[in-house]
Amino acid sequence: SDSMAYNSYPLLLVLLALSAPLAVFAGDPDILADFVIPASTNPTNITGDYFTYTGFRDISTPAYGFTLTKATMMEFPALNGQSVSYAMLTFPPGSVNPTHTHPRASELLIVAHGTLSVGFIDTANRLYTQDLGPGDMFVFPKGTVHYQFNQGNSTATALSAFGSATPGLVSVPLAVFDTGIDNTVLAKSFKTDEATIQKLKAGLAFRCC
Amino acid sequence: SDSMAYNSYPLLLVLLALSAPLAVFAGDPDILADFVIPASTNPTNITGDYFTYTGFRDISTPAYGFTLTKATMMEFPALNGQSVSYAMLTFPPGSVNPTHTHPRASELLIVAHGTLSVGFIDTANRLYTQDLGPGDMFVFPKGTVHYQFNQGNSTATALSAFGSATPGLVSVPLAVFDTGIDNTVLAKSFKTDEATIQKLKAGLAFRCC
Amino acid sequence: SDSMAYNSYPLLLVLLALSAPLAVFAGDPDILADFVIPASTNPTNITGDYFTYTGFRDISTPAYGFTLTKATMMEFPALNGQSVSYAMLTFPPGSVNPTHTHPRASELLIVAHGTLSVGFIDTANRLYTQDLGPGDMFVFPKGTVHYQFNQGNSTATALSAFGSATPGLVSVPLAVFDTGIDNTVLAKSFKTDEATIQKLKAGLAFRCC
Amino acid sequence: SDSMAYNSYPLLLVLLALSAPLAVFAGDPDILADFVIPASTNPTNITGDYFTYTGFRDISTPAYGFTLTKATMMEFPALNGQSVSYAMLTFPPGSVNPTHTHPRASELLIVAHGTLSVGFIDTANRLYTQDLGPGDMFVFPKGTVHYQFNQGNSTATALSAFGSATPGLVSVPLAVFDTGIDNTVLAKSFKTDEATIQKLKAGLAFRCC
Amino acid sequence: SDSMAYNSYPLLLVLLALSAPLAVFAGDPDILADFVIPASTNPTNITGDYFTYTGFRDISTPAYGFTLTKATMMEFPALNGQSVSYAMLTFPPGSVNPTHTHPRASELLIVAHGTLSVGFIDTANRLYTQDLGPGDMFVFPKGTVHYQFNQGNSTATALSAFGSATPGLVSVPLAVFDTGIDNTVLAKSFKTDEATIQKLKAGLAFRCC
Amino acid sequence: SDSMAYNSYPLLLVLLALSAPLAVFAGDPDILADFVIPASTNPTNITGDYFTYTGFRDISTPAYGFTLTKATMMEFPALNGQSVSYAMLTFPPGSVNPTHTHPRASELLIVAHGTLSVGFIDTANRLYTQDLGPGDMFVFPKGTVHYQFNQGNSTATALSAFGSATPGLVSVPLAVFDTGIDNTVLAKSFKTDEATIQKLKAGLAFRCC
Repeated sequence: SDSMAYNSYPLLLVLLALSAPLAVFAGDPDILADFVIPASTNPTNITGDYFTYTGFRDISTPAYGFTLTKATMMEFPALNGQSVSYAMLTFPPGSVNPTHTHPRASELLIVAHGTLSVGFIDTANRLYTQDLGPGDMFVFPKGTVHYQFNQGNSTATALSAFGSATPGLVSVPLAVFDTGIDNTVLAKSFKTDEATIQKLKAGLAFRCC
Repeated sequence: SDSMAYNSYPLLLVLLALSAPLAVFAGDPDILADFVIPASTNPTNITGDYFTYTGFRDISTPAYGFTLTKATMMEFPALNGQSVSYAMLTFPPGSVNPTHTHPRASELLIVAHGTLSVGFIDTANRLYTQDLGPGDMFVFPKGTVHYQFNQGNSTATALSAFGSATPGLVSVPLAVFDTGIDNTVLAKSFKTDEATIQKLKAGLAFRCC
Repeated sequence: SDSMAYNSYPLLLVLLALSAPLAVFAGDPDILADFVIPASTNPTNITGDYFTYTGFRDISTPAYGFTLTKATMMEFPALNGQSVSYAMLTFPPGSVNPTHTHPRASELLIVAHGTLSVGFIDTANRLYTQDLGPGDMFVFPKGTVHYQFNQGNSTATALSAFGSATPGLVSVPLAVFDTGIDNTVLAKSFKTDEATIQKLKAGLAFRCC
Repeated sequence: SDSMAYNSYPLLLVLLALSAPLAVFAGDPDILADFVIPASTNPTNITGDYFTYTGFRDISTPAYGFTLTKATMMEFPALNGQSVSYAMLTFPPGSVNPTHTHPRASELLIVAHGTLSVGFIDTANRLYTQDLGPGDMFVFPKGTVHYQFNQGNSTATALSAFGSATPGLVSVPLAVFDTGIDNTVLAKSFKTDEATIQKLKAGLAFRCC
Repeated sequence: SDSMAYNSYPLLLVLLALSAPLAVFAGDPDILADFVIPASTNPTNITGDYFTYTGFRDISTPAYGFTLTKATMMEFPALNGQSVSYAMLTFPPGSVNPTHTHPRASELLIVAHGTLSVGFIDTANRLYTQDLGPGDMFVFPKGTVHYQFNQGNSTATALSAFGSATPGLVSVPLAVFDTGIDNTVLAKSFKTDEATIQKLKAGLAFRCC
Repeated sequence: SDSMAYNSYPLLLVLLALSAPLAVFAGDPDILADFVIPASTNPTNITGDYFTYTGFRDISTPAYGFTLTKATMMEFPALNGQSVSYAMLTFPPGSVNPTHTHPRASELLIVAHGTLSVGFIDTANRLYTQDLGPGDMFVFPKGTVHYQFNQGNSTATALSAFGSATPGLVSVPLAVFDTGIDNTVLAKSFKTDEATIQKLKAGLAFRCC
């Protein structure tokens, strides 16, 4: 689904910059105003609608596979300068949010329905895991590799908050095995043979359903 | 003269540190490690439990009045240095989260059940309002006065994320009228008579049920 | 040699800005140059005048009421990126600077003439007060509600410094009672009746003299 | 209910600090509380006095030479974490505040009495100067070399605000010529002979009156 | 070799905190002093030695495999608060610095000897590659997955600078396949079978030579 | 009065932005994207070349005098937002990098060839010195005055990393004695006579070879 698409911040940011003379590449620190208004917008036309996002109203349960729906600065421009954003995660039984990192924010996940097995690895290569039920919360520190897994029999849903308007997402399987890195580099990195690398690449390149 | 002496920060800072265990609580910016462990905790005893918070499991619907349940650094120490926190808000029909500000973070509210009328006032004294239903999101910029109101007939619940581990809370009614500020100062501030101030103070001092 | 040439950041940065309409509303953190020049200004025309502000030369004593005169980034553009600003406060006898907050900076007030009674409320709703005379200083922490009151018989003047070029100002009486927030929300927030709210609104809406 | 209790960060934070000798020399960015209390102080003993500084009450006019009186975090501990500080400058006729830099803050100077000739040099080695009278303001960007000079016939006084609680001070004459740097290094740096360096060193080492 | 050991910041930081009463968990932003002195050190004993690190004097060429030698805050405590650190990288012919990320800093690599093929993947999953020779520089943005590969016939050496005193290191092969993450999670993440996962785990667990 | 008007930042900021392409150069803190692309560049044209800098390939040994070659954001635009940069320093025998400061970053120097005598002065006017050989590292804290001197018989080279993309450079001799500061100000600052000042100015104004 569309909501599963991985982010493409750099391209969108620049297109935004070219189409409107006001581009903000500033960091998440304090802004010099209450909020940031796109340059193409007449500030007297700003109402409560600008601060409202309704994109989470109708998140249907996917028939197949984990689904991620984001509400970051790209989907909800009023978050620019506010240092916070959300993602809704939906896990059919047996599905996984693959190992990934967020380069620009920690993630605070709360389970809404069902159960999730979660884990992250710190920079000393130590794994921390937990089984979560409804209402339970888990924090994934900034930049660490982490995952969530629905081992239960019913769909699980969770909401994650980030301390940045653009947390970013690095999917470890896709970044490593689906971007064209040379097979030799990958075989040496993972201390395996190139045939295994090719098999992994082929599996990830196949996007079904 | 003594006042002409040039500074000697490093020496003084360290002497100060040695003579008293000067505690300084660093800001929300990046920490120099993946996470912060309390000094009283043996780091080898840290497991996934440290990163888990279960305090939101059993938030019962209040019989009377708006209820706020927080998961900030005070309740959930692992949030220290992660720049994110949550609050759960429960609104029986007709209840209000009174006008307030958060000094250290913007708030991103998402409605879970019911409906909420919300609003904030920017530093140019302009009011922005919205009516929200389930799944809708609204962002309250850092430091602005804001409120939420359940005008519906059923209980409303919402989750708010903050871009700080300690957003702080300044309740405008309580800070102004329930902390002992002199009646004259308040009467002049609000351009009213002292009798009105005394009436407001009395109403807020009464904490029932 | 060319590599020995000392830097000329301001000029190059501005030329870059002129060649592309890239504007950024950066925060108060460090800028990437010594100072920021408006894009409409030829950097070779920048002289000491740009760094000078004379708007405080002739602040006359008001006949009636507290007066605030600001020197922030809006009045003095050279403050952009310098993380500091001033306000001059003049208090005829009996006048009050109404309860307010600054969302983006702490305030360090020094009394020039006369006496002031001051106070702030921390986020634990504790009031801290002080009586100040000429030369005395008081710090109001960022985001806290505070006020100043001249109980003396002569005009008091004070200068306040802020650790931001745009501290912002939220006047509690005006933000709450003069921006059109629904009477029901306010009555419930302040635990009073709507008639009292209407009276407060009427008093603040009246701007005399 | 308990969950409704308003926050009491300062107390809890300090208790935490007392139970473990954890001291942090944090930067000027946002703190995680309203203010910082020295670990040796019982937080319930904190009153308005802690936020008050009276060291500028009696700054007498010096008989000889420029005088600098500081109110930074070292003199006024409540400034810790508030990102702002002051200095009072007194200039008898003909006196100079020697060329210097502040490594951690810009300076916003306002003239109280008399006149001052001021200047700074940006990192492109361009000099910006101005003649200031009472009420006039000048901003010296962070880290730039600057000076003030009273060319008038009466004493001049000025107040400077800094966007840091510890701006720091590097006196160019003293740092370069009064700290024992090798004569050869200095002669080569200043493209002069060692005799001139020795003369400059001798002049600065002599502290009279 | 010892220099190849992956970092163990959290543990070391806490041990440091327990053994000495001065622990700094502060972020990389500006400190409130010129530098930070360990609490166990008498500041009058600080000399130029404290600011010197000689651990890179004798980095011998490894007989086998890529070697990383770090000079971060853990090895060189004076870097605390200075927001900069180094790593020396040595690549025998055919060796690879496996795919990894740095959670807290961008990396600016300069080739000293030999040639390197390098690449990083941005958060839009786009790969950027380059072939570098002596004196060439390449910047790897913060948090992105990247690698370096010596395809040449002679040993290559490079120096990398980081804009943090503790950049951190997440080795993608080791974090994912050598920390005990459940095989099912990994098989689903990488869209492969568990046998392949077990093979990858076995290859990485074998540490020879 | 006009000075009493409460602020209206958002509106004014946007009007300012619309009337002139106000350029604000954000600080070194986190950017909201992986990297920053110049607005004049089509993002689809960005390749690994954008992240590569080859300006250090051919740094020839100078026949006379110290040479500094920079790779900051001005020379290497991809460093924008990455908080790191380099400088290459080449010292013929007997040459000096004159006393200077970097306003926006600490410097971490590593000696490549030869030997260097280095030193810095902290804000308490204390001098820290060291003699460095190949592979040795020394950190110069942000904003402090420092120098390097080659006392040896062979050319010395060093590489310096900075924790900012634009560290800035204030050459103390040139900023003070080669920018037109009034002789009287300088004579009083350095407690010497104007003839000595004029001699120093003349020596520095002469740029040979």
